[in-house]
Amino acid sequence: MSRVVKLAVIPGDGIGPEVIAEAEKVLDAITADSDVTFDKTRFSLGAGRFLETGDTLTDDDLAAISAHDAILLGAVGGTPGDPRLKDANIERGLLLKLRFTLDHYVNLRPSKLFAGAPGPLSNPGEVDFVVVREGTEGPYVGNGGAIRKGTPQEVANETSVNTAFGVERVVRYAFALAERRRKKLTLVHKTNVLVHAGAIWQRVVNEVAGEHPDVAVDYLHVDAATIFLVTDPSRFDVIVTDNLFGDILTDLAGAVTGGIGLAASGNINPDGNFPSMFEPVHGSAPDIAGQQKADPTAAILSIALLLDHLGLTAESARVSAAVEADIAARSGARTTAEIGSAITARL
Amino acid sequence: MSRVVKLAVIPGDGIGPEVIAEAEKVLDAITADSDVTFDKTRFSLGAGRFLETGDTLTDDDLAAISAHDAILLGAVGGTPGDPRLKDANIERGLLLKLRFTLDHYVNLRPSKLFAGAPGPLSNPGEVDFVVVREGTEGPYVGNGGAIRKGTPQEVANETSVNTAFGVERVVRYAFALAERRRKKLTLVHKTNVLVHAGAIWQRVVNEVAGEHPDVAVDYLHVDAATIFLVTDPSRFDVIVTDNLFGDILTDLAGAVTGGIGLAASGNINPDGNFPSMFEPVHGSAPDIAGQQKADPTAAILSIALLLDHLGLTAESARVSAAVEADIAARSGARTTAEIGSAITARL
Ligand SMILES: CC(C)[C@H](C(=O)O)[C@@H](O)C(=O)O
Ligand SMILES: CC(C)[C@H](C(=O)O)[C@@H](O)C(=O)O
Repeated sequence: MSRVVKLAVIPGDGIGPEVIAEAEKVLDAITADSDVTFDKTRFSLGAGRFLETGDTLTDDDLAAISAHDAILLGAVGGTPGDPRLKDANIERGLLLKLRFTLDHYVNLRPSKLFAGAPGPLSNPGEVDFVVVREGTEGPYVGNGGAIRKGTPQEVANETSVNTAFGVERVVRYAFALAERRRKKLTLVHKTNVLVHAGAIWQRVVNEVAGEHPDVAVDYLHVDAATIFLVTDPSRFDVIVTDNLFGDILTDLAGAVTGGIGLAASGNINPDGNFPSMFEPVHGSAPDIAGQQKADPTAAILSIALLLDHLGLTAESARVSAAVEADIAARSGARTTAEIGSAITARL
Repeated sequence: MSRVVKLAVIPGDGIGPEVIAEAEKVLDAITADSDVTFDKTRFSLGAGRFLETGDTLTDDDLAAISAHDAILLGAVGGTPGDPRLKDANIERGLLLKLRFTLDHYVNLRPSKLFAGAPGPLSNPGEVDFVVVREGTEGPYVGNGGAIRKGTPQEVANETSVNTAFGVERVVRYAFALAERRRKKLTLVHKTNVLVHAGAIWQRVVNEVAGEHPDVAVDYLHVDAATIFLVTDPSRFDVIVTDNLFGDILTDLAGAVTGGIGLAASGNINPDGNFPSMFEPVHGSAPDIAGQQKADPTAAILSIALLLDHLGLTAESARVSAAVEADIAARSGARTTAEIGSAITARL
């Protein structure tokens, strides 16, 4: 019985197309001898498309993408400060619009320190945790505004919105994940200052914890969590946190575990109402674009997350193992394509 | 001509009284042969006081404290999860109430890696920067609330408020500081997501930058800033940022430069309308309270900031130098009092 997975591919800007080419190499190789076929559709989206057509993400784009089973995204965003992009806001208008419209309420960001991976810590210990970042609420909702803009009397507000509905579903996902791992869950927030948002997160975690008596639960303020990420990262198993804190913690976690050149992520809709989207945590890095300098490992590990999400567990594990072996054997500089080919060869 | 400085001392909870005792030792020693006298008033505030009297910070407390020239604070806060403190919120009701009422719009947090200080990074380089954290706005304003609290329909909001008035005054302070240092200023925010709050910060920094052509200005998203704090902390000179990002960055910065046992801070009202307040960045650490295990260095470095703020530049430099020499000579465990005495002896 053969299975066809409709995959929307958004290479995007900057180094996006380069790392996606290697991710596709790996995907093609891993499915070559399997009964799963990936039927790929390419979408030209990002700063490049905006500069050409003035469109960021049209309703037609959205409808076409939504008709797929999953999405692979490279990176989007033009050169910072490019005046022609002043009104584009590719981040809000494209990336966050996809996450919000496709209800990607779980932003899954594993952090594992592979043997041989370079890292800034002198004594990191064994690091293997997953940040479950909420993806559709918090300060990311875009509920802000300004009055008297541009004047000395300007007031600019941003509102973080947190619902029991939204918090509960991501917290449930995090507990289920902890059950399958080392059974430890850490809530990260700032309950002592953001008392209302903090209280809803704390309450929901307490309630769901009652259904998981075997999961050890603790809590850290976000500021303290950054300290532990650099002094004792082994203490973490599953971290559950809001959209903004998750954004901050996962970049730091990426740095601690070998750099964001290795950090993969899944924007997941666990209910299957919409296609989930897999992307490296890094951005489009226009300064090194087209030079074969980017590390495609994060994009390749995003393929592992995609395969796992589709239930192709064995294939996912083979990709991860190939990456792990490649990192352990690293020496000297390689081009983007060389890294992709080396990992493919190890499959 | 002798000068009398009226100093309000709030030892607080947990390790607060222990570290403040050592800070006072240093203050007494440095002023012993000078024409400045510190006239100290002790205020019993914190979780302990709340448990005794039910008061967090009364109007009388505030009026009495305000009548001083400066404030020295240890740490406040009881045992996390203590049910008797459920309604206290010592953080908002005491610490933040002082910062907001006394208009401490500059939260000054230097990060310097002293020779010999332990740190988690294998190759930190020379680290010497100052975070100028806004202290009276942003997500800390307490403009939040919840509806349908405790139900599955709860919605909890928090609003970040940012005014041109508030941003401009702290940005001006940061530029002036950069002029006296290595002339580099980094704005940290999340302009690509928090577009309204981000825009006001970016605009004001651009405007004030025009008056400081010799200061090199750059910008980092907060997530990227955490990466650089662990991979290239020497790149920073002055960081200016909002209240919440500043909270997060300075705990991480403290960890990178030897732990928050060494991190001092000043909550400053540069206009002199209200007394400024000096405190270690660390909390009350009730788990090790009364055991002489806490490092009083952060409290002692807060004395250096206090002296500098009062214009006692030479005295401030002597305290910093004594700390620096003490750290360089460290070996083996010492009690809180032993560290305080050792630093005092080096003055
Ligand atoms: C580009 C930006 C909008 C995005 C975010 O803040 O979520 C990025 O930093 C990430 O972490 O995926
Ligand atoms: C205790 C808490 C309210 C405080 C803050 O968030 O500002 C602390 O973390 C700090 O950095 O001084």
